[in-house]
Amino acid sequence: MKRVHHIAIVVEEIETALPFWQQALGLELAEVEEVEVMKARVAFLPVGESRIELVQPTDPETGLGRYLDKTGGGLHHICLEVDDILAHLAQLRGHGVELIDETPRVRENGTKYAFIHPKSTGGVLLELYQLPQQSG
Amino acid sequence: MKRVHHIAIVVEEIETALPFWQQALGLELAEVEEVEVMKARVAFLPVGESRIELVQPTDPETGLGRYLDKTGGGLHHICLEVDDILAHLAQLRGHGVELIDETPRVRENGTKYAFIHPKSTGGVLLELYQLPQQSG
Repeated sequence: MKRVHHIAIVVEEIETALPFWQQALGLELAEVEEVEVMKARVAFLPVGESRIELVQPTDPETGLGRYLDKTGGGLHHICLEVDDILAHLAQLRGHGVELIDETPRVRENGTKYAFIHPKSTGGVLLELYQLPQQSG
Repeated sequence: MKRVHHIAIVVEEIETALPFWQQALGLELAEVEEVEVMKARVAFLPVGESRIELVQPTDPETGLGRYLDKTGGGLHHICLEVDDILAHLAQLRGHGVELIDETPRVRENGTKYAFIHPKSTGGVLLELYQLPQQSG
C-alpha cells in the first residue's frame, strides 16, 4: 500500500466548484480532463503525493450522476495505490470482501483499477490503483 | 498546502471495522487512542504520508454520534496539513468561505486545527491542521 492516490469529490459543475479549492484554499489546478469512460469531467488538484479530483458527472444515468442527484455532491470515494493489484484483490476475496470489480479494469494509460464494495468497508467506496510501470 | 494529513471514517466499532482495513487490505495499525475532546476512540492507519483514521463515537449526542446514527458510518471528513493555519483562515474568510472554527482550536499536543463548513466546499467537511513546530 503505497499512498492515498486521490480523493474524489462529486460536484455539480467544475467551474463553480473551482474557486473554493483553487483561489480560497490555494490548491493548484493541474488539468481538467474529459474522462469518457466515467462519463465525467475531472479536475485534478495535487496535494503532496495525493490529489483531489473534482468529478462532474456528464450523464445523470451513471452511478456518479445518481450520486450527485441524491446528495447534491460531496465526498465520493478514496483511491489507494498498490504495487500489485491482483495480489490485493486475491487477498481481499480470501477475507470474504465483496468486490465491485472482480478483476482489474484498465484505463487507456495502462492504469489498472478496481472498486471494493462499500458493504465490506463500512460504507466507504474504495478504489485500488496500480499505475503502469515506468520503462527504463 | 503540504499534504493530505488524514481521511476520517466514522465506524460503529473499531474492533469490527479493523479486520477489513488491517487484515484484508493490509494496512498497519499504528495505535488506537481515546480522544476525549472528540468523544471518540480513533484508530490510526498510516498510508504513505497520510493516514486513515477510523473514528468510533463514544457519545451519541455529538456531531460524530449523530453522523453515525444517520448514515451507519462512512467517509466523514478530510484533513489537509498547512504551514500557516492563520493565513489560510484569513484567506478563506476573504473569499467569503464559511468557517466552523473562526480561530484555530488547539489539541493537547499543540496541533492547531479548524473546520471549514461543508456549505462552502460543495458538501465536503474539510479540516485544516498545523502541526506543532519541531524544536531544534
